[in-house]
Amino acid sequence: MNQGFTVWLTGLSGAGKSTIAERLAPELAARGCSVEVLDGDEVRTHLSKGLGFSRDDRDINIARISFVASLLVKHGAAVITAAISPYTQARAEARGRIGSARFVEVFVRCSLDELVRRDVKGLYKKAMAGELQHFTGVSDPYEAPENPDVTVDSEIESVEESVGKILVEIKRRGFLPSEIKAAL
Amino acid sequence: MNQGFTVWLTGLSGAGKSTIAERLAPELAARGCSVEVLDGDEVRTHLSKGLGFSRDDRDINIARISFVASLLVKHGAAVITAAISPYTQARAEARGRIGSARFVEVFVRCSLDELVRRDVKGLYKKAMAGELQHFTGVSDPYEAPENPDVTVDSEIESVEESVGKILVEIKRRGFLPSEIKAAL
Repeated sequence: MNQGFTVWLTGLSGAGKSTIAERLAPELAARGCSVEVLDGDEVRTHLSKGLGFSRDDRDINIARISFVASLLVKHGAAVITAAISPYTQARAEARGRIGSARFVEVFVRCSLDELVRRDVKGLYKKAMAGELQHFTGVSDPYEAPENPDVTVDSEIESVEESVGKILVEIKRRGFLPSEIKAAL
Repeated sequence: MNQGFTVWLTGLSGAGKSTIAERLAPELAARGCSVEVLDGDEVRTHLSKGLGFSRDDRDINIARISFVASLLVKHGAAVITAAISPYTQARAEARGRIGSARFVEVFVRCSLDELVRRDVKGLYKKAMAGELQHFTGVSDPYEAPENPDVTVDSEIESVEESVGKILVEIKRRGFLPSEIKAAL
């Protein structure tokens, strides 16, 4: 069976996690991976309806995503998760569950100034006006990864550049079936 | 990729779902399947902590199991679920999500008399004494499948016989990789 792995995207709302996931997925599929994107919002609908955004509820949500990711990895899938996952501890637990060797933590960086400027969904304005509680980066903490496997920066890189950097790391780990095949 | 599928075991508590799952899993693995057992109790810990046994909570729990099963099936796994799943509607939704062609519904039958006689965990006595609410088959309904793909009967069959009947159906559907390989 092919080697499964998880690309764990973490970063603030609007930083570009979902966009990167959507662009990375077909690149991995083209290289022979069986790809699954677990998007934070979608997973909340299917696995975590009723949970809110307190630290406890966020931790439970992330634990569920990592449980599902670990099952998929076990069966050879290339999983991309796109959830804010603001707490270091919860990400460390996800790494532990999935296995460090198969866990690629990607910090999707973007400054708050830039996110407020973009504010596609108008959420930052609301949060800064005090209308949204538990909004990561404004009224709730975001603990940036200290040693991510890859850092991409949506403020200064194109999506293609970011996807390229992630692919380099995945290739370096020897996870791409087309490369494995070519080496046989 | 190999064809994924789900063996969906349904039946009363103590009827033998987990035992069948444990015995079926290595048989499938020996035939080349990438097997995952989603046991009701274990899944509740990982995906449904906090949910109770009201109809709504049971439905949500079953929907989560079927969501995870559908993802695994998509990536080629042979999934065995062992959850009471008492409601016809919830099982029909699971079938719809996973896809009817890849969904093998197995009714694990056992009479209430026999279950009360076995009562391994002492739960039936408690339920019949009115000490357990929402106990399927006693204080909560169990809607037996009307047209299951396989019916096994732990009251009159050995575990080997039951597992054998399920394997016949899986083979008939053409899901066993070793058979597929042999046919090539």
